[in-house]
Amino acid sequence: MATERPRPVTLMDVANEAGVSVSTASRALTGARRVRGDLEARVRTAVETLGYRPNEAARGLRMARTMTLGVFFHELTNPVSLDLIDGLGAAAHEARYSLAVTSARGDRSQYASLFQHLYGQRVDGLVLVWPFGELSAHLALFVRAGIPVITIRSQRGVPGLPVVSADTTAGITEAVNALAALGHRGMTVIAHGILWTPPASRRRNLDLATEAVGMRLRRRSSRDAGLTVREIVASELSSEDAPTVFLAPYAEVGEVIEAIRAVGKRVPEDVSVVSFADSRFGAAALSERPAVIDVDSFELGRRMAQVLVDAIENGPPSEDVRIQGLARWVPGATVGPAPHR
Amino acid sequence: MATERPRPVTLMDVANEAGVSVSTASRALTGARRVRGDLEARVRTAVETLGYRPNEAARGLRMARTMTLGVFFHELTNPVSLDLIDGLGAAAHEARYSLAVTSARGDRSQYASLFQHLYGQRVDGLVLVWPFGELSAHLALFVRAGIPVITIRSQRGVPGLPVVSADTTAGITEAVNALAALGHRGMTVIAHGILWTPPASRRRNLDLATEAVGMRLRRRSSRDAGLTVREIVASELSSEDAPTVFLAPYAEVGEVIEAIRAVGKRVPEDVSVVSFADSRFGAAALSERPAVIDVDSFELGRRMAQVLVDAIENGPPSEDVRIQGLARWVPGATVGPAPHR
Repeated sequence: MATERPRPVTLMDVANEAGVSVSTASRALTGARRVRGDLEARVRTAVETLGYRPNEAARGLRMARTMTLGVFFHELTNPVSLDLIDGLGAAAHEARYSLAVTSARGDRSQYASLFQHLYGQRVDGLVLVWPFGELSAHLALFVRAGIPVITIRSQRGVPGLPVVSADTTAGITEAVNALAALGHRGMTVIAHGILWTPPASRRRNLDLATEAVGMRLRRRSSRDAGLTVREIVASELSSEDAPTVFLAPYAEVGEVIEAIRAVGKRVPEDVSVVSFADSRFGAAALSERPAVIDVDSFELGRRMAQVLVDAIENGPPSEDVRIQGLARWVPGATVGPAPHR
Repeated sequence: MATERPRPVTLMDVANEAGVSVSTASRALTGARRVRGDLEARVRTAVETLGYRPNEAARGLRMARTMTLGVFFHELTNPVSLDLIDGLGAAAHEARYSLAVTSARGDRSQYASLFQHLYGQRVDGLVLVWPFGELSAHLALFVRAGIPVITIRSQRGVPGLPVVSADTTAGITEAVNALAALGHRGMTVIAHGILWTPPASRRRNLDLATEAVGMRLRRRSSRDAGLTVREIVASELSSEDAPTVFLAPYAEVGEVIEAIRAVGKRVPEDVSVVSFADSRFGAAALSERPAVIDVDSFELGRRMAQVLVDAIENGPPSEDVRIQGLARWVPGATVGPAPHR
């Protein structure tokens, strides 16, 4: 025994151990046809004794599937990705699929090789997360082979690719209404860095929600203007219609608060600060969690995988999937009533 | 054409398109035997035209491999995991393997099902990251089947499981020497939360490095004592031999700095603050990056996957693998000369 080359336990081993035929062992395990009670018990005992597990890869082959969902990330630097992977993995596991994770590490020249690899491995479906730029050429292989592809945001150039997204309407409306009820009449959104390339729907929802309550909304991007966050905050606060709320990316909340203090104002007595939080990890380095519009990325990942598995097993969804209830307003110590002017 | 069910392009399609036999097409592509130059060119053209890719899953089957590396995470909440996944994926891709990522979402009752799934999918090798507790029962299946398993830290109960780890000796020594050169004679390490369950080697290296320069080292754990970070900092700074340096987990650096300021001291004029940084993402919410002992988790992941692929293809490593050069001292604005007493 000790010198025997290790190998996976097969159904034949189980049948030998139980003293039954392979087909009896198979029937006992799949329940395809009735097996005498005592024989079934012997097979079950043999399975436990030997630690036998059915070969899922072989099962996949019989179904012409590899039982694998591929995930393509442009890069893995945003903690949101961790929640998405966790959620995708949870749903994949429930449906008995594996999750093959790939990242281009921010390098578009890696795309061709990675997509060819995913295709070569014959993933049964593909999730694209944060894809930038044109992907049609890479996706043609998958589309031609009938492998479902879904994405977390719209793709120009790949018409008909279903988009699964969190509907942030409710969360954003709730946040804006809460701020309006506190007397706030002007908000400036600070855009900065890759963590803050907001989906168009967030922009639109913010426009609609602020318009509905008559709140002024300005957008300032440090990237476009070549300004630092500190310079933007200072210039906004010195303007005649200075905002009383800043909406900033999570990674820049600390910087915005310091910039407000640098011009002699207090948070939240003079100015409130709000952010989007897409990740359970978030900015743990902040001693106090800022007020956030919380988006449950784990649940988004879970639902994406469910949509993909459904597409593999029952055909692609006929339209985009917008998931409700993933965004909600969570007040925090960085928000207070608007100051009297 | 439009109503034809989409399917992957096969070698037979290529052969038909090129007007050659399947075996000629195969020889042209594998280079196993010489093929007439004009025939080879026709096959190459057909490959491009049709977008043919060899079926890696089928190739894996011929080699009795699935060309998949499994990764098991206890949970995916630490951004370090993102760097590890990225590094593991980079090396896996180079070696033409896929990376199947699983997470128990912090729930040990998920272990059995996840390990059975990984085994059932016939991963060719397995990486365990942050596994807590006893894993022997789950790993028996893999060990018996001769599937290599490596881990990022020691496993009690699984003797002989190779550990791949970053050798932090150089980085820690460099940091302690730099602090000693700035006049610091006392350091307190604050342990708190799951982000800061330091590998035994880090503790040992810290002991050795501080001893070598005659620096006092104290450890305080907020979990054991039921104290807040703020209470620990206050009590340490009021002691007779108060430390002039705190070493804190990245996620608590902001809290430590605020606690120091709360007792009327300045950073770094009165007290310096140092951390370990294991992730490229890190605490981006801090406006200034603290002085850190930087550990390159991406590279650690890359090397782990390389060790695993080597184990699959050439047999397991004979001993633990300690990777040099992944830890280095990076000074920052939170560190200054020790104050005169």
